[in-house]
Amino acid sequence: MMLMTNKAVRQVVAALTYLLMSLLAKVEAMMRRRRERRQSDDNDDDGYCLSWRLGVEANNVRSWRTVPPECYNHVQQYMTGGQYQQDMNLIINQIVAYASQITLSPDSMDAWILDVDDTCISNISYYQGRRFGCDPFDSATFKAWIMKGMCPANPAVLQLFNTLKERGFKVFLLTGRDHATLGKITIDNLHSQGFIGYERLILRTAEYKGQSAVKYKSAIRKEIEGEGYRIWGNVGDQWSDLQGECLGTRTFKLPNPMYFIS
Amino acid sequence: MMLMTNKAVRQVVAALTYLLMSLLAKVEAMMRRRRERRQSDDNDDDGYCLSWRLGVEANNVRSWRTVPPECYNHVQQYMTGGQYQQDMNLIINQIVAYASQITLSPDSMDAWILDVDDTCISNISYYQGRRFGCDPFDSATFKAWIMKGMCPANPAVLQLFNTLKERGFKVFLLTGRDHATLGKITIDNLHSQGFIGYERLILRTAEYKGQSAVKYKSAIRKEIEGEGYRIWGNVGDQWSDLQGECLGTRTFKLPNPMYFIS
Repeated sequence: MMLMTNKAVRQVVAALTYLLMSLLAKVEAMMRRRRERRQSDDNDDDGYCLSWRLGVEANNVRSWRTVPPECYNHVQQYMTGGQYQQDMNLIINQIVAYASQITLSPDSMDAWILDVDDTCISNISYYQGRRFGCDPFDSATFKAWIMKGMCPANPAVLQLFNTLKERGFKVFLLTGRDHATLGKITIDNLHSQGFIGYERLILRTAEYKGQSAVKYKSAIRKEIEGEGYRIWGNVGDQWSDLQGECLGTRTFKLPNPMYFIS
Repeated sequence: MMLMTNKAVRQVVAALTYLLMSLLAKVEAMMRRRRERRQSDDNDDDGYCLSWRLGVEANNVRSWRTVPPECYNHVQQYMTGGQYQQDMNLIINQIVAYASQITLSPDSMDAWILDVDDTCISNISYYQGRRFGCDPFDSATFKAWIMKGMCPANPAVLQLFNTLKERGFKVFLLTGRDHATLGKITIDNLHSQGFIGYERLILRTAEYKGQSAVKYKSAIRKEIEGEGYRIWGNVGDQWSDLQGECLGTRTFKLPNPMYFIS
């Protein structure tokens, strides 16, 4: 039978107590640091990036070339963490509610306009490789991405597209993509993603080359109205889709904090 | 000298180890619960309310009467926790940057339009008592609040007001408040809060009673332009401040998730 002195027992207990207390202190310090880091993130970068993104979506921040570098994590988290999708869903619900109140005319001239890039189909996976817009726009790699014909549908917009068709609206897809070089791949990409049965896909022909999106898209909408169509809704991820002339009865701005087109 | 058996020492050590392990397990469970609660908040109400508020600010959500009840905490936190102020500051910085690029004409006809309620001066402390807009609008208590003449300045907008004056812009304050009943208290409130030296304060006279804000404010801006003024900027917290005719060269939407005026 082994025996320990009272002193030895007290030493063992003291050592264990010391270990316990220092462990608790470490856990507490860790939790405090996490809390502080979270608050500091909230108050500094995240707060600024929330303001910046709200500024972009409300059209207060204009003509920006790249996402502010300190907002890389924020925009990445926004685009891929679920909030972008949730924002899209809420807007699409607003659009469907608005569309459902419209009484269509028997002349089949009730029209709707949808933009293509980051409206019908998504370039998020391309922009993931461009640090979600923190890197400057690069036309060569973007064109190479488009030529793959691999842009996935925005699920909420595909649902809207089908709802509008079923209700009897004539859906016009209007894009700044170049007709000559990107026409075929754009048609293929849209069809493979389920965008079938639109009234017309309009790409940028030579006569509109070099024009701003506002000017080009206004001219096209004017032509559409000139044919007798009534444009009830106009949906795009850029304010330049929704400004200028013949805007339609109501416009809807989808979120896009990755790039700005004037 | 007291002695402990080896067995007794082992029992003490085992008991202390057990205590330590169960304490650690509790701390870990607590941290997991906190994390899950935070994520679940983010994904449920907070995510929805972020989407709703973005929808309001981007003018996708229109004609709403009250803040969704599940967004009470979100809007309260937004309005009083610092983010609203940060959003205001970012927009005001954008406005000042834009204004600084304008070359003013020597004819002193370069003008700017600012809305009053929740642009120049703030109704947040009134809306605090109306659950930040979750309660329906109540004209009697709102009028009683206005009649106190206690609306504090929005500090960022007061700074903008002074900057615009110093640069030589003629600042027009344009409000839907009733001229006959609220004219005097509005002047007093604005002056006491530092809004001194504006070109004109325009309140709603009898002839515009019952008109929508878009129609009334468009008519006033048309008159101002008719006098020969050039409206360079137009700032308000409601989209109805920034729609219609004679909008000005550039409009700026300040945040307001508490109420909607058509």
